Amino acid sequence: MLLEQIKEPNDIKKIDKKKYPELAEEIRDFLINKISVTGGHLASNLGVVELTMALHLVLDMPKDKIVWDVGHQSYTHKLLTGRREGFDNLRKFGGMSGFPKRNESECDSFDTGHSSTSISAALGMVNARAINGTDETVVAVIGDGSLTGGMAYEALNNASRMNSNFIIVLNDNNMSISENVGGVSKYLNNIRTAKNYISLRDKVYYSMLDKPHGNAVIDAVRRTKNMVKQMIIPGMFFEDMGITYLGPVDGHDVNALKKVLNEAKRVNKAVLVHVITEKGHGYEPAVKHPARFHGTEPFDIETGIPSKKREKANYTDVFSTIMVKLGARNDKVVAITAAMPDGTGLKRFHNIYPDRFFDVGIAEQHAVTFAAGLATGGLVPIVAIYSSFLQRAYDQILHDVCMQNLPVVFAIDRAGLVGSDGETHQGIFDLSYLSSIPGMTVMAPKNKWELSDMMKFAVGFGGPIAVRYPRGTAFDGLKDCREPIKLGRSEVISREKEIAVLAVGSMVETALKVKDILKQKGYSVTLVNARFVKPIDTDMIDELVADHSLFVTMEENVASGGYGEKVSEYVYSNYKDARVVTISIPDEFVEHGNVDLLKKQIGIDAETVADRIMAELN
Amino acid sequence: MLLEQIKEPNDIKKIDKKKYPELAEEIRDFLINKISVTGGHLASNLGVVELTMALHLVLDMPKDKIVWDVGHQSYTHKLLTGRREGFDNLRKFGGMSGFPKRNESECDSFDTGHSSTSISAALGMVNARAINGTDETVVAVIGDGSLTGGMAYEALNNASRMNSNFIIVLNDNNMSISENVGGVSKYLNNIRTAKNYISLRDKVYYSMLDKPHGNAVIDAVRRTKNMVKQMIIPGMFFEDMGITYLGPVDGHDVNALKKVLNEAKRVNKAVLVHVITEKGHGYEPAVKHPARFHGTEPFDIETGIPSKKREKANYTDVFSTIMVKLGARNDKVVAITAAMPDGTGLKRFHNIYPDRFFDVGIAEQHAVTFAAGLATGGLVPIVAIYSSFLQRAYDQILHDVCMQNLPVVFAIDRAGLVGSDGETHQGIFDLSYLSSIPGMTVMAPKNKWELSDMMKFAVGFGGPIAVRYPRGTAFDGLKDCREPIKLGRSEVISREKEIAVLAVGSMVETALKVKDILKQKGYSVTLVNARFVKPIDTDMIDELVADHSLFVTMEENVASGGYGEKVSEYVYSNYKDARVVTISIPDEFVEHGNVDLLKKQIGIDAETVADRIMAELN
Repeated sequence: MLLEQIKEPNDIKKIDKKKYPELAEEIRDFLINKISVTGGHLASNLGVVELTMALHLVLDMPKDKIVWDVGHQSYTHKLLTGRREGFDNLRKFGGMSGFPKRNESECDSFDTGHSSTSISAALGMVNARAINGTDETVVAVIGDGSLTGGMAYEALNNASRMNSNFIIVLNDNNMSISENVGGVSKYLNNIRTAKNYISLRDKVYYSMLDKPHGNAVIDAVRRTKNMVKQMIIPGMFFEDMGITYLGPVDGHDVNALKKVLNEAKRVNKAVLVHVITEKGHGYEPAVKHPARFHGTEPFDIETGIPSKKREKANYTDVFSTIMVKLGARNDKVVAITAAMPDGTGLKRFHNIYPDRFFDVGIAEQHAVTFAAGLATGGLVPIVAIYSSFLQRAYDQILHDVCMQNLPVVFAIDRAGLVGSDGETHQGIFDLSYLSSIPGMTVMAPKNKWELSDMMKFAVGFGGPIAVRYPRGTAFDGLKDCREPIKLGRSEVISREKEIAVLAVGSMVETALKVKDILKQKGYSVTLVNARFVKPIDTDMIDELVADHSLFVTMEENVASGGYGEKVSEYVYSNYKDARVVTISIPDEFVEHGNVDLLKKQIGIDAETVADRIMAELN
Repeated sequence: MLLEQIKEPNDIKKIDKKKYPELAEEIRDFLINKISVTGGHLASNLGVVELTMALHLVLDMPKDKIVWDVGHQSYTHKLLTGRREGFDNLRKFGGMSGFPKRNESECDSFDTGHSSTSISAALGMVNARAINGTDETVVAVIGDGSLTGGMAYEALNNASRMNSNFIIVLNDNNMSISENVGGVSKYLNNIRTAKNYISLRDKVYYSMLDKPHGNAVIDAVRRTKNMVKQMIIPGMFFEDMGITYLGPVDGHDVNALKKVLNEAKRVNKAVLVHVITEKGHGYEPAVKHPARFHGTEPFDIETGIPSKKREKANYTDVFSTIMVKLGARNDKVVAITAAMPDGTGLKRFHNIYPDRFFDVGIAEQHAVTFAAGLATGGLVPIVAIYSSFLQRAYDQILHDVCMQNLPVVFAIDRAGLVGSDGETHQGIFDLSYLSSIPGMTVMAPKNKWELSDMMKFAVGFGGPIAVRYPRGTAFDGLKDCREPIKLGRSEVISREKEIAVLAVGSMVETALKVKDILKQKGYSVTLVNARFVKPIDTDMIDELVADHSLFVTMEENVASGGYGEKVSEYVYSNYKDARVVTISIPDEFVEHGNVDLLKKQIGIDAETVADRIMAELN
């Protein structure tokens, strides 16, 4: 095995160049085998095997820096930097992260997870290099999907001013997670498909490189403003911004990649290397279904079918179904996703109401303000974005939606702990950032039926409103608790006295267990489903305070600005004798791992909560 | 006066076209006269007089929609839509806003204030039009400065997919507030300066328009992929994205503007009209000093000099001075602004340390992640961004800075109430959105010396840290209170018993007055300068609780997620007998007006606070 010879950074340079295809195949086999067991990001990693090899061949690790945009495509990078063993515990609690982590390896230069950050971060490194007087090479690797995110363009706009080397590798697979959208994508596609022209151009170009003064001639052509340039250089879009364009180059040809990367290293300014890759390359099921193999559960290698059959609907499924109903019932309902028609469950809505569906690309900011514009036209936009990604549109929610009190509905999936994707993806801040905004209403459903009810309520609400729900299996207990939703009113699940547990969304299920434990110990417990995090139900508190001495709030969100702080403030300032225990995510980032393990670890599992309550009472 | 004939929307159409220049002059005189008295945005408004006239000549108000990016250039629009009287109370409490407001006029189609939102919002309206089956024209007017903001590009990327008319007017004055930066700016400048070529092209172009089938010929040329296109159409950058480019056109020639706008209306897709304007046009002092006349205090028309001489330093001045010192003391200190070298006070740092200064354009997201990249290179980046604009980088602060615990310093000016710019600019959320983030430290200085001390502390701190300070005159009282800054420690200003007032930053000055009032009524008051909002000083509370029964927190921030909630939670959960009153901004957006009036209005002025405390005690 060639792969066994690669034990530490730069070991790949010892491999005979004739054996690159063999090594690439070994890496693919390794990744497919490992990920089929652990789950993880597959398609994107299979797409960049050769690109990563070429980068490690032309760079000196860890002196040189690679910033992986989003970062879920860094598996081969991890393999080539001595982390082969890590794959046995990939994305497991205490195991190797599925993303680059500075605290995992010196070769990881920047932690990523959200899209479109790489050029900004790498540009910071390039400028630090100038100030420090060092000479490392800095490379940002960004997908064409990530290039639809505005901050990538902000960074490109700044990169164009560099007068020292800065390499941007555009990993162009014509996909983000799903199919790509928009003008830039179309533009890249035009370049990609102009094969004959490019092959001719490349012949001219590379033959020039081999000639004496060939580089000078190319540079001279670049500097011209006339039309010949357009003939030689297809990437005028980037050249127009002042960024040298090289490519397109076959992203599965290590030697071609080495050649163009070495050429890029010689450019004394920002240079974009356009690399054409295939998502899922080398594994047929992933090539055919790149979205499904973007992030995958364990699967059978032969068939590509998930090892475990999903038995229950998850919240995304429930959202998907109710969206189809809402679309049928109200022709003003429109849906918006930021490059995640599959992940958010909007695909069915798209299929049935294509004219009322908008995939805006990885562009959360635009998504929200675009929705605000739609709302001024009398429509009811539903913006479906994961909790941690919606962070990027905080200002737009505040400034464009809430300040004008527009009826935009935010459907926030992956709220709370998400598990194996880890700290960059935990949706544990939304209750805080949404609650801080005047005019915003925030809900969380306890079970699958309530998600549907809340979506219906939200569509008829007439102002900014959010429904946040977790990743994974939808809770299907408490089917009979289905009081109509009323603004700001919580729901009593079971009424006793002494201890009142007020639980938000997913924590209602946990609270049921807490109640069982406490009941067994002889305590009397009232269980309330909060439903609304903003506004909180003060009437309910006023009512319960008569025969409850302890209020317990439970939420999958940080304490600061969350539900607990508000309940606590209200209870204490109005009722001197009551006590409040707030259960929330501690003030720290939560790493990757199984959600149940994580909950235990941070003390929001049923047993720990029950213990805390009993400690408070004794 | 021609202007007197314009009493309501569309009245401008009655004006004889020969008199457009005369009307433009009247409008300029009117604006200069009014703004010289009230203060307001001048230079940007003088730049778009003819453009606004032309828009109102070709559009039908309020059926057609104009979305003004940022919105401070909408004064002529307000004039032409029946709001002449409003200028007497421009930006005053209860008076006309300096920005478009849907609740002010039917002709204001979308509220703006922050940069780069217009194309997104307008694109929403265009799509709503398609769904509603209506036929209004929708125009986004965006400056070249706003075009450096990433969400504008996200929107352009989506606009390119439109197959119905959508007009984007690029108001290109080669400036944002200060000079513009980056590749796109350079690109636009190339177009702008290619005068001979463009004049030739225009002759060809417009002569074709007058010919039979001229439009068809132009369309055919646009559809070609060959080089001839480059000859005819300079805006390949936009054409590459799939957006029709028209221009450049002289932004001070109403008839030329009308012609091109009418042409734009005929295009059945997104069309960008490139308009060249001069910021401050027609008023020499504003042309010479566009940054100073961007937002101006009342001034003398003859000289352009401010009517009132500033007697005391404001916080921006203090920041400016300390930055120069920090730059001298530590050559790892670098400074970053998002298009506001003047507004943030970084201009002096820039002049002295040009290699350690970065103006990234209106690109707050990039600014923060870029700073994170610089920090990984061992530098100490100071990111100076106004409180309300930093909202746009919430995700980057959380995901790129705090998650990696990088030593980035956030210098947050305009924190708290900002006054006449109104609700879009109030910096009343930063304590909340920053406190929600694990690993973030948040400070606020009580006076000008403390701002310097905190900046020094921040630079040596070694992790993510923010210093937030208000707009306007720096408080110069309490000069002798200058205990060294220690992490998480507050400062006792005066120690008595009974009532403990814990005030954050600017509220220390107010708290001094509260204390005076209470003392006169015979109460005993301890005054504490909180200094740190995160972490809060629990030791101080533990100490004070022995002889204080009432804690009062004061902050210029919303309650949710702010300082008061944290103190309240801590006090109540640890000390059953203590009581807490939290003074903060109520859960609503705060409009424009004099800051003292606003404070009274929302109940955070000294008198109201004192009354609330006494009410609590009785």
